[in-house]
Parts: sequence; C-alpha cells; structure tokens
Amino acid sequence: MNRRISSISIHSPQPRTRRSSYATSVSSRRNENLTRRLSALSTAEHGEAVDTATTTAEETVAEEIAEIKRYEDFTTIDWVQDAARENQRRKARRVERAGFFEREGRLGWRRKVWEAYDAGQGWIVVTLIGIAIGLNAAFLNIVTEWLSDVKLGYCTTAFYLNESFCCWGAESGCPEWHRWSTFWPLNYLLYILFAGLLASCSAHLVKSYAPYAAGSGISEIKCIIAGFVMKGFLGFWTLLIKTLAMPLSIASGLSVGKEGPSVHYAVCTGNVISRLFDKYRRNAAKTREILSACAAAGVAVAFGSPIGGVLFSLEEMSNYFPLKTMWRSYYCCLVATAVLAAMNPFRTGQLVMFTVRYDRSWHFFELPFYILLGVFGGLYGAFVMMWHLRMQAFRKRYLSQYPILETTVLAIATAMLCYPNMFLRIDMTESMEILFLECEGGHDYDELCDRQNRWGVVFTLLCATLLRTLLVILSYGCKVPAGIFVPSMAIGASFGRMIGILVQALYEAFPNAAFFAACEPDVPCITPGTYAFLGAGAALSGIMHITVSVVVIMFELTGALTYILPSMIVVGVTKAVADQCGKGGIADRMIWFNGFPFLDNKEEHTFGVPVSQTMTTNPTTLPAHGSTIRDLERILSETKYQGFPIVEDPETNMLLGYIGRTELQYALERAKRQQIVGANARCFFTSRDGPRTAVTPSAAMPAVSFDDMAETAGAMSVDFSKFVDPTPPAVHPRLPLETVMEFFKKLGPRVILVEYHGRLTGLVTVKDCLKYQFQVEAHENPKDDSALKAGQDKLWNVIRRVADWIGGKVGTYSGWRLRLGE
Amino acid sequence: MNRRISSISIHSPQPRTRRSSYATSVSSRRNENLTRRLSALSTAEHGEAVDTATTTAEETVAEEIAEIKRYEDFTTIDWVQDAARENQRRKARRVERAGFFEREGRLGWRRKVWEAYDAGQGWIVVTLIGIAIGLNAAFLNIVTEWLSDVKLGYCTTAFYLNESFCCWGAESGCPEWHRWSTFWPLNYLLYILFAGLLASCSAHLVKSYAPYAAGSGISEIKCIIAGFVMKGFLGFWTLLIKTLAMPLSIASGLSVGKEGPSVHYAVCTGNVISRLFDKYRRNAAKTREILSACAAAGVAVAFGSPIGGVLFSLEEMSNYFPLKTMWRSYYCCLVATAVLAAMNPFRTGQLVMFTVRYDRSWHFFELPFYILLGVFGGLYGAFVMMWHLRMQAFRKRYLSQYPILETTVLAIATAMLCYPNMFLRIDMTESMEILFLECEGGHDYDELCDRQNRWGVVFTLLCATLLRTLLVILSYGCKVPAGIFVPSMAIGASFGRMIGILVQALYEAFPNAAFFAACEPDVPCITPGTYAFLGAGAALSGIMHITVSVVVIMFELTGALTYILPSMIVVGVTKAVADQCGKGGIADRMIWFNGFPFLDNKEEHTFGVPVSQTMTTNPTTLPAHGSTIRDLERILSETKYQGFPIVEDPETNMLLGYIGRTELQYALERAKRQQIVGANARCFFTSRDGPRTAVTPSAAMPAVSFDDMAETAGAMSVDFSKFVDPTPPAVHPRLPLETVMEFFKKLGPRVILVEYHGRLTGLVTVKDCLKYQFQVEAHENPKDDSALKAGQDKLWNVIRRVADWIGGKVGTYSGWRLRLGE
Repeated sequence: MNRRISSISIHSPQPRTRRSSYATSVSSRRNENLTRRLSALSTAEHGEAVDTATTTAEETVAEEIAEIKRYEDFTTIDWVQDAARENQRRKARRVERAGFFEREGRLGWRRKVWEAYDAGQGWIVVTLIGIAIGLNAAFLNIVTEWLSDVKLGYCTTAFYLNESFCCWGAESGCPEWHRWSTFWPLNYLLYILFAGLLASCSAHLVKSYAPYAAGSGISEIKCIIAGFVMKGFLGFWTLLIKTLAMPLSIASGLSVGKEGPSVHYAVCTGNVISRLFDKYRRNAAKTREILSACAAAGVAVAFGSPIGGVLFSLEEMSNYFPLKTMWRSYYCCLVATAVLAAMNPFRTGQLVMFTVRYDRSWHFFELPFYILLGVFGGLYGAFVMMWHLRMQAFRKRYLSQYPILETTVLAIATAMLCYPNMFLRIDMTESMEILFLECEGGHDYDELCDRQNRWGVVFTLLCATLLRTLLVILSYGCKVPAGIFVPSMAIGASFGRMIGILVQALYEAFPNAAFFAACEPDVPCITPGTYAFLGAGAALSGIMHITVSVVVIMFELTGALTYILPSMIVVGVTKAVADQCGKGGIADRMIWFNGFPFLDNKEEHTFGVPVSQTMTTNPTTLPAHGSTIRDLERILSETKYQGFPIVEDPETNMLLGYIGRTELQYALERAKRQQIVGANARCFFTSRDGPRTAVTPSAAMPAVSFDDMAETAGAMSVDFSKFVDPTPPAVHPRLPLETVMEFFKKLGPRVILVEYHGRLTGLVTVKDCLKYQFQVEAHENPKDDSALKAGQDKLWNVIRRVADWIGGKVGTYSGWRLRLGE
Repeated sequence: MNRRISSISIHSPQPRTRRSSYATSVSSRRNENLTRRLSALSTAEHGEAVDTATTTAEETVAEEIAEIKRYEDFTTIDWVQDAARENQRRKARRVERAGFFEREGRLGWRRKVWEAYDAGQGWIVVTLIGIAIGLNAAFLNIVTEWLSDVKLGYCTTAFYLNESFCCWGAESGCPEWHRWSTFWPLNYLLYILFAGLLASCSAHLVKSYAPYAAGSGISEIKCIIAGFVMKGFLGFWTLLIKTLAMPLSIASGLSVGKEGPSVHYAVCTGNVISRLFDKYRRNAAKTREILSACAAAGVAVAFGSPIGGVLFSLEEMSNYFPLKTMWRSYYCCLVATAVLAAMNPFRTGQLVMFTVRYDRSWHFFELPFYILLGVFGGLYGAFVMMWHLRMQAFRKRYLSQYPILETTVLAIATAMLCYPNMFLRIDMTESMEILFLECEGGHDYDELCDRQNRWGVVFTLLCATLLRTLLVILSYGCKVPAGIFVPSMAIGASFGRMIGILVQALYEAFPNAAFFAACEPDVPCITPGTYAFLGAGAALSGIMHITVSVVVIMFELTGALTYILPSMIVVGVTKAVADQCGKGGIADRMIWFNGFPFLDNKEEHTFGVPVSQTMTTNPTTLPAHGSTIRDLERILSETKYQGFPIVEDPETNMLLGYIGRTELQYALERAKRQQIVGANARCFFTSRDGPRTAVTPSAAMPAVSFDDMAETAGAMSVDFSKFVDPTPPAVHPRLPLETVMEFFKKLGPRVILVEYHGRLTGLVTVKDCLKYQFQVEAHENPKDDSALKAGQDKLWNVIRRVADWIGGKVGTYSGWRLRLGE
C-alpha cells in the first residue's frame, strides 16, 4: 500500500554507478545526479526494473541528504536516523547480493576479492590510521626534544642533534654539546628569545591557518564523538597545523603538554583517513567508532600506554562505548604503539621519556603520606579548574583579539621565571623522568639526591610546584596547541618528590621510631621517586576526574606490580576529594563553559517534572496537505527550526511524521529545479489515501526518509512524503523529564515529539533539556559574578596601562607602535 | 487536576514509620501495613496534612509492589519504572527534608549524622562487601591448597599444613612431608579414592542444599545483572554452599577452575550484604551497581588483578556499565585485593600462585610463533564450546537425575587418567606456576628444563593439552562449583610451553640461522615460559571472547612491560580467529542454550521489518471503565500475561495506560480485603473526568503507578487509576524492529506498547524480539540435529549397559545395587 506511490513514479535505472560517484565532491555530485536523473525522467520505463532502480535512486538521495547533514555546522547528528539508514543500506546490499547470485550464478573472483575487501575495510582503515598516528608520534617526539634543547645550546657535530643524541653514551654532557655562551646572562637572554620566537611562530601558524588547532581539543572532541558537528575541527588543515605548532609550543617552554593535542591530531588523522573510504563517509556511527579508537591511540602514543589509552577513551572521551568500539580502540592502540616502538624515537626502547622501574616495595606506614598525595591531587584539580575558568572568561572578554601577542608575552614571562629553577628550566617530560628516578644506581641530577642539600631541593621543588601551577592556569587555553596532562603530572611529581624527601628526612631523623619499624636496617627504606610518581598520578586524576585509566597509565609507565595498590589508593582519595569540590573534570567544565549541547552521562538529575514543562509547546507544524511551495519557502526563511512536525491539519494536530529542515530544503530545491511545478503547487507530505486509514501499515516502507519526486495526477501538486520520517520518536507529555533525558542520552535522537493520544502537543530537544537543567541549577545556586567582573575590568585596565607604557617606551626607541584596546 | 481524586481520598498520616518497618519481612509487613491503614480509614482527616500523608502512603504501597516484583521468579525488572520510582523517592526525600527545615529550623546533630550515613551508605556497603570477599578468597586459597595436597600425602608436624607450609623454606620436599605410602600403586589408589570422595561430597552438598551453586554461574549472573529475576540464585545458601563445595571440587582434581565460582560467591556476598541495607532492597538499579562491582571483585581476588577485574566486569558481565559503576567496581576490587594482600594466604606476598616475573625481552622473529599461539587459542575456544554444548544437551537429556554419581565417576576417571602425567597430577594453578617459570634461576620441576629429556617433556605436554581439553569438555557443567578460566589457561600454558620448547630446540639446532640473527650469543634467547604465559592468555581469550581484560589480567600477573605488546598481538589473533568460528563466548552460548531472555549488546541485526511484524497483535486489554472485579479476576486467572494495556473502550482502542499483573493483583486483593466493595463493583482505571480532555496534563502527577484506594461517589466502584502507569513506553507500528531492540537494550523496559495515532495496535516484549531473531537465524542456517540426537541415544545406551554391568558385578560382590535409567 505504501509502495503505491513509488510504483507509479518515474525513475532512471542507475545501475551501480553510485559507488564510484562518491569520489567526487558533494556539491558537484549533487548536480551531476540531478542532471542525470532529470534527463532520465523522460526516458523512464515501467515494470520490474523500476523497483530496484527506485531503491537505488532512493538510496542515493538519502545518502545525499545524509551527507549534507554531516556538514551542517553546529548541529547534532540524529543517531536514531543514522542507525535506521545504516540498516536500510545493509538490507539493500543484501537484496543486491541476492539479485547478483540469481543473475550471475556464482561468485566470480573479482567479486570475492571485492567482498573480502568490503568486509575487512574497517580493519584496513584502522591499521592505516594506527600507522599514521605512530609515525606522527615518533616524528613529534624527535622534533620536540630537539627544539627544547636548542634553547639551551647546540651540537657541534650536527646541528640537528639534541643533547642526548649528540652526547650518545656519555653520562652527563659532553664537549660536543655547546651551550650558546659561557656567559650566563647571555644564555638567559637567548633562552628567553628562543621561547618567545617559538611561541609566536606557533601562535602565528594557528591563527593564520587553523584556529581550531588551538587548545587541547578534548572537550570539543567529546562533543563531536557524541554527535555534534563542528566543520573543520577534524580537518586536514587542523591536523597539519596541530602537528607543526605542537612541537613549537611545547619547546617554547610554555607550561603546556602534548597529550591533549596528541588526542586531537590522532582524531584528525582518523577523520582524514577514514574520509577516503566510502563506508565511513556515509555512516556517522562507524565514524564515531573510528574517532573513539583514534582518541585511544592518541593517549596510547603520548603515554606509551596502549591499554591506558583504551580506558581513557572509554572513561573520558566517549559517551557511548560498546564492546565493538573497545575492540577497535584496542587494535588501533596496538598498531600505533607497535609502530612507535619500532621507530624507537628515544633510542632507549622506551616509548615515553618518563618510564621508570622500581625495585623496592612500599610499607604500610607510608599510607598516610599516600593519602596526603591524594588529597593534594584533588585540591590541585579543583583549584586549577576554578582559576582556569576565570582566566578563560577573562581571555574571552579581553584577549581574544591578541592571540599572538598574548602567547608570546606568556612564553617570555614563563622563560624568565623558569630559567632560574632547575626543574622548570628543562622540558617537563625530562624533569619528570628525573623526579621519578630512584636515587640509587648512579643517577643524580643537580644534587637532587644529595643529603646535604636536602632543604635547598625541597625549597626548589616547592617553588616549582607553585610556579608551575600558576603558569598552567595562565597558559592552558592560550591560542596554541596545549594540553594539561603533562603539566599536571609535572606539578604532582614535584610536589610528590618534595613530600618524599621530607618523609625520608623524617625517617633519617628517627630511624628507630615505632612508626618506621617495618623498615629494614641498612637498606634505603623510603624511595622519594615513588612519591613523585604517585603525586603525578594524583594530579592527573584530580584535573581530569578519571580513575581507572590513570592507574593503568601509571602502571604501564612503571610495570611495578607492587605499586598498583598505592596508585589505586592515591587515585581513590583524589577522586573522593575532587568529587567534594565539584563535579566534572576540566573537559566537562570547558564543555559547560562553551555551552556545547552535550548531555553528560555521569550526571544524575531529579527534576520531578514531566516533559511537558520543558517542551516547546507550539512548534511550527506543516499540514499534511495544502501548503504551497511558496508557503513552505516562507516558513523556511522565517524560522530557524531544525525540522517541522507534519500534522493532519492544524486544528486536530494529529501527528503524521516529521520532516527535517535539510530534507525540506532539499526537496523544495529539487522540485523547483525540475521546473514542472510552480510556486503555487500544493505539496503533500502523506499520500492522500495512504496509511491514514490503516491501523497496521504494511512493512514494505521502512522508516527512513528518502525521496520520490512523483508527479501525481494533479500536475500542480508535489509528493514530499518520501522525505518525511513517518515514525519520529514521540513520548507522552506526562513522561518524567529524567526519562526523556535518558532517551536522549542512550538513543541519541535530535528531537523528540510530544504526543498525546495521537495529537502533537510539543517537541523537545537536547537544548531544551539543558536549558531547563541550567535554570534549575541557577535557581538552586544563585551566583553573583558582578564583583568578579569588576575585578577583571580593573585587571584589564592595569594590563592595558602597562602595555601602553611598554609600547610607548618601545615606540620611542624604535618607532614601533603597540596599542591595546583601541 | 490530576490531584483531584487523591485529594478527596481517605488516608492515614503514617509519619515516617516506613523506614523501620522495612526490617520485617515482606509478607508480614504487607499485612501489618494493611491493618494499620484499614483502621486508619475510619479516623482519617482532610486538609493540609492529607497531602504529605498521601505521598507517604502512596510511596509505601509503591515500595510494597516493587518489592513483590523483585521476588517474582523468572521475570524481568523494568528499568524504566525502576528509575522513575527512584526519582519519585528522591523527590519525596527532598520535599521531606524541606518540610523538616521549615519545622525544625536547623539541622540537629542526629539528623546530620543520619544524613552523612545515608550519603555514605553506598561506600560502607561496598567496603563491607570488599572485606568479606577478600577474607573469603584467602580462606578458600588456603583450604583448597591443603585439600589438593592431602591427596598426595600428609604433614607429620601438623596435619592441617599443606606441602609448602609443611616444608617452609625447603626447596623441594622435606622429610616432614610424607607421601601416603612408599608403594606407588597404593598412592595411586588413595589418590583416586580421595578424588572420588571429595567430588561426591561436593556434589552432595550442592544437590542437598543449593542446586544453584552448581556450575560457574557467570551466564546466570549476566542475566541477573541485566534484570532477570532468579530467586535464590544469589541467596545466602548458595553463597555458603558455593564457598564450601568449591574447595572440595577443585581439590578433587576435576578439571574445573575457581574463577567462575569466585565471581558467583562474590556476587552472592554482595547481594546478601546489600540486602541488609534499606537503600539496596528498594532499588534494583543500585543493586545492579553493587552486583557489577562484586563480579569485578570476584575476578580481582581470583587472579590477584584488581584492574583486570574491573575490566572483566565491564567487558563480560555487565550490559550497562556507567562510570559510576566502574568507580564502585574499582573501589570494591581495591578493598578486596588489599584484604587478600594483607591476609597473604600463600605467605609469599603474591596474590595468586602463578604470578611470575620475566627479565628478558622478546624478539621480533618470535612473532610467527605468537600468531600460532593466538590461532590455537581461537580454535581451542571454538572446539571446546561446540563440544561442551553437545555435552550439556546430553547431560540435560540423560544425566540430570544422577548428579552425584556423574561427578564422582568423572572425578575418579580424571584421577585415573591424570595421575600418570606429571603436569596433570598436581593442582592446575601449581602446574601453571611451573610452566610459566623461566628455566634460569634454579627452578626446575621434574626435569622440565632438562635438555636431554626435551622430547619426553614435549610428549608429556602434548598429552596434558589433549587430555585436559577432553576433561574440560566433560567436567565443566557438572553439578559442582566449576569454572572454566583456569583449566583453559592451564591448557594454553601446556600447549604454549610445548611450542616454546620446540622453538628453543629449533634455535639450538640452527643458532646461526638468519632467522635468529636478533639473538645475542651466550645468552638464552628463547624463554619457553613466556610462550606458556602467552598461550594461557590466548586460551582464556578464546573461550571467553574477552580481550582487553585478558591483556590486563596477564599484565597484572607478570608486570612485564615488555610483554604487553606480545600479549596484545596474541589476544588480537585469538579474537580474530574466534570471531570467524562463531559469535559469543561460552557464557553467551550458555545463555542461548538455556533460553534466558537476554538481549546481547554485542550483536547487531538487520531484519528490515517494522515492529508490527513481531508484536502481539491482539493483547488482552482492559477497558478504562466498566469492568467488574469479577471480570478482572477471571482475566487474571485465564491469562498469564505480565500486564494489560488500558484502553478507552475495546472499539476505539484508544490507549490510556498500562497496568502490570502484579499491580492489578495487588489492587484487587486490597479492594477485596477492604470488604467495602463486592465482586460486582465496577473498577475504573482512569478518573472519569480527568486528563482525558486535557491535551497537556498538569505536572502534579508523576508517571509511576501508586495506589489510592478511593471510595468515590458510587460506593460500588473502585478507583484503580493510581496503579496504572499512564505513560507506558509506546512506539509507532512502522518503527524498524532494530530500533525497538535498541530501545529494549538501552532503556530496559519490560514491555513496549505499539500505538498508532493514539490507538493501541499491539505490544512487544524482549521475548518477542528474541523469538523473531531466532526464527530468522534458524531460517538462515537451518540445522538438522536428528543425527546428533541418534548418536547421543546410542552413547547413552552404551553407558547404561556398562553401568548395568558394573552395577551387576558390584551387586554380586557387595549386595549394593546401582541402576540407571529405570
């Protein structure tokens, strides 16, 4: 019965040219298809052939619409529709294959190869992506290390070698590695100059070529994986610029890490490569799978921790992580890590610099200190998040016009402050490596293990902790590729080492106290390095609010079975403290801050209201019959809604279906191009004598919207019914809001209609839910930030005055003019 | 407007006696409540107080119904309703608290303590459970080891010591440890006798006290966590018997492991302990969280692998694993493992016997052999699963009456076959420990490392592999606590060690071949122990179809950072091979075999049909008005449906709500007990002038079904509207079946109604979906197992004849009669 319209429609047979046509771009293809189909309109035939042709043609149009939708900026993907379309596609493929068997009898070898390729495509794509990520990671490691060392000196044998390669084999330094000068103020100056230069290069690249390459990208990727569309965020340019700018920004000495950007470039790689394959261009769910796997691989190569990467993707990145995705992530991490291991960028067999091994075990009496580390981690996270958000608000209000200047000034200030501190001067990963090490075994960096100098070291470490915290708050979020993982770990490590040294001092002061009874005599009892290690884990957990993945990552950095319990305890304490200080890690907070439409799985709400309280009560509806093309165009131009419910007529409001804005636009465009119908032609969205009378419609017509531009009896009417989704998700108005939010979270539709006894009473979107939630939260915790804003204003005035003064001075001496806030 | 009915209803105020009343049992409480409320009926008041009273009373009844439902055997929990009820409860609590503030002004300290306790209850429960699991695990480890050793000999210093404690400090054996006799045939006989005795004790315990304690329990627990109710499966008796019978069955030498039972007793512990707490008795979702955490802890203590446990729970046990559950699991594993570590059952600091450390790394040329191990794992899994399912079918048909006899015979046969093989004779964990070890460092068990005896060892290992595989197929599933993890690992280990020895032999034959160029001279190049280790991982992954958790478990057994890539590769290959051989691990297959209503998340289907094809088209509906109590009772007795849609009248079929069978039964019972109404009283399910005319009902009435037994104008009518769920999940008949299955999987309702323009057209349950799925699968792969059945018949005849013959002989000599298959 539903097939009736389509069987009298006119179509071209279009035999399997679909696949090849995908290689061309969207818009050109659309035109091409249209021309082809329009010309075919006159030569169409009826009969058997039409049916398969219809299917193919319908599919093509559905694909076209889907593809347009994938590129609509700042919209959300409708996962329900996406899944329905994929099922449709699979069914079509099965039918096609069955037809093939009937026609050709047996499988030819070409066909066999093609099918095997089709089945294995996913694995091929993931392998390619994994290899690309691994190679990129190795490249970045090498470049970053070289650039970091260039700030301090150069290699006389070959300028492109960093210190450790230049002095390969030597314990500490060698004559081939020269500092820039023997006069330290000159070194200091060069250090500062290099820092400023590298940072401004990085900021320039980002600003000019790919603004999306700035920052860490983790919160945006979270939203993208959840279905939010951000055009270009995962594009080729972002990938390229992120890859180039990341070593620059890290080497500049800014307190930023490479892990967030690592995830970003990995996901970009996945997006760019998977776009080359048909399957992934068409299906958002499959792409999501790949993106989750890439996020995992990004962490895996950044920390040399394949399983940690998988868990990070599970715990932090993906709101939907079925086992199939886990398995893809696992494989992607495996390939990327294996490639990185084969490249061996540090020539030490280690995947990351700060890998370490511990020989000694821990004692139960150390537990209080571990708990202290955990508490520190939680407080650190809460403190940094609070101030970072304020800093971001400030940045958004005042600094958004000066990204390059801001970054350069920051880098210069960082360099000036950090050079005097021995732990801040060197690269963060290097300093972590030093802090993690045991004192025994001949390693010693700048008298870290020297007992005479203990209080000096403690003071230096305390300074490093505080200064780095300040710098992280200022730097994370500036307009260069910047992560917060490694800086947090470095802060945790310096704090932990400090605690470790203090505990060691305590033990050495009272070696015979009952508290230390578990220590064996004549054997070093306290290992300060392990405190640094645990502190790093605590800080990482505190800032990101992740637990299991941190433990696994830390475990994969040491392989110390014995330290798995302490890690778990420290991270557990951190988590408990962090939860007391507010919900969500820094990525979640940034999502709220930026107002992305992201429903967090972690949150639970009790509103106690039905969905009817939050819904849009009078949505713009389209009557099933009688609108003219002109009417529809007017509605489209006057409203900005993402779609329109179709009702029988505006009085009864009997719900018949839903048409997306994109589908409607597409349909109108096509109808006009065909030029068969004028602006006064009537459009109908359901077939006139169709399923309206049927209680149980036949199964022939599936639930996706595809088109069939049938020219029906009256030449002045157009059938849009194929563009309509006849089974949009609909709920009862009295359904609790919480249940509707679960619906959004777990099934992921774009919009849910509210229907009461068949009649439309409203519609609700994720944004409606979030709006209500924020209202409730604002009502419960009213906040007055006018004082904060006034403070920020004052601060900005001070900054401007200082800048003006400096600008004036510089201008006086050099004729170069600098002015802020014109 | 919705409140109208409730405001004229008559209720007792019942001020907060609810909590204490929970301590008594369900049925007695129900009576008590009823009496109380009936007596209150006459003294009820109107006005302000009624409203809160109504809420409390409504809540109480809702709780009662919920609790009845939780104990209905072989039904499924409706997660949507459960969540709605929890929201309702939270809202009530908030209202109550607000009222409290108004009345009392400030929080008293008692109140504060109570609220802190209420908030921290979850953690207290998990801590208690973790401690109990850890203690139980330590106890089981000690008892199992002792019982295993008792088969071989005894300790002269103290009978309760096992061999390693008896000979503490000695390398291999000591004079204090005596074998039973110096004459080996006597030892053999005693070994067999002990085996039979232990097995029959175990089977006796299970049969007499807790039949649910048999088997591994993993597949059932999967279903229970997904919402299936199996009364007593997680009860105290099951816990006790599983704990007692498990050491017996393992020590009997049957090829069964302790990991599945470990999970089972852990989950039982969780269930038993959480039942003591109010919060968990009321809320199925919270209980599910605890059960997932316990499953994780069970694996954690069995393998000494806390993170592996969390991942196992995630990957295998739970179809819904939000981050909150992960975090609970993490904590539960931490506590259980810490307790086990503190108990230190082996006095070696290790948590499991087969922990091992490797010093040497691997070489790239070993990859082909690793892949071979992976392939073995996949094939092993597929082979064992196929034959095990056949064995189970056979067992179900013929052996179900003789559980004790079967187990005893199996144990005796196992003992007879295993005693001569040096790897099969000892406990499986012990043999794994031996197989995992490196040869260097003075460990040698029975010339395993002896190069002279290489071919002998290879032959013994091959025998062990094959024999153990046979025994696993036969033993797993017999009526004693029995897991398949450790036996699988043991098989993989013996196979792997064999491959390792062969590779070593190859290397020693051609030490200068180009293939072995990576080997350094004069250093052992091949470590057969690592092959055993990887083989164990492969077999475990092959049988369970889990990946990430296996890698983490294996990693936590060794802490060898260098072996993480090989483990990942081996497990990856296994997974790929296993997926080719069929879908689902052994737990999933057992679920299908047993026909539990479990929708697997891992599967994807393409049916291409709308839900109208699978739904029950003419469900028994109840008209909103006009049924008499007698009618309803007749419908209840004639049908077995779990619930009934409420329609306006049978002609229009306009859907108004849904009433569960339990709710209806409860309502009828109460109405009759009140004796106000007779059997001819009319029941109505919606208020007569209520929401029917309203398009947007007010928010006052939430979507849960609670009761309000109002005596309305006509004394001969009863209002059941409070028992009705006014917003049952409903979908369009044309919605694709796949979408509806997603709905079931992700939101978990018990039933989904099919509604077309407000009219009921059918209803669909998980079972309907599964039925359709199985039909499609059966249609696609038609299977004829009559040949198999005939074969089984023949086998059974042979067994019976042998048994008769033996029985006859024994009877002749001893007067004891044994007959099968009367």
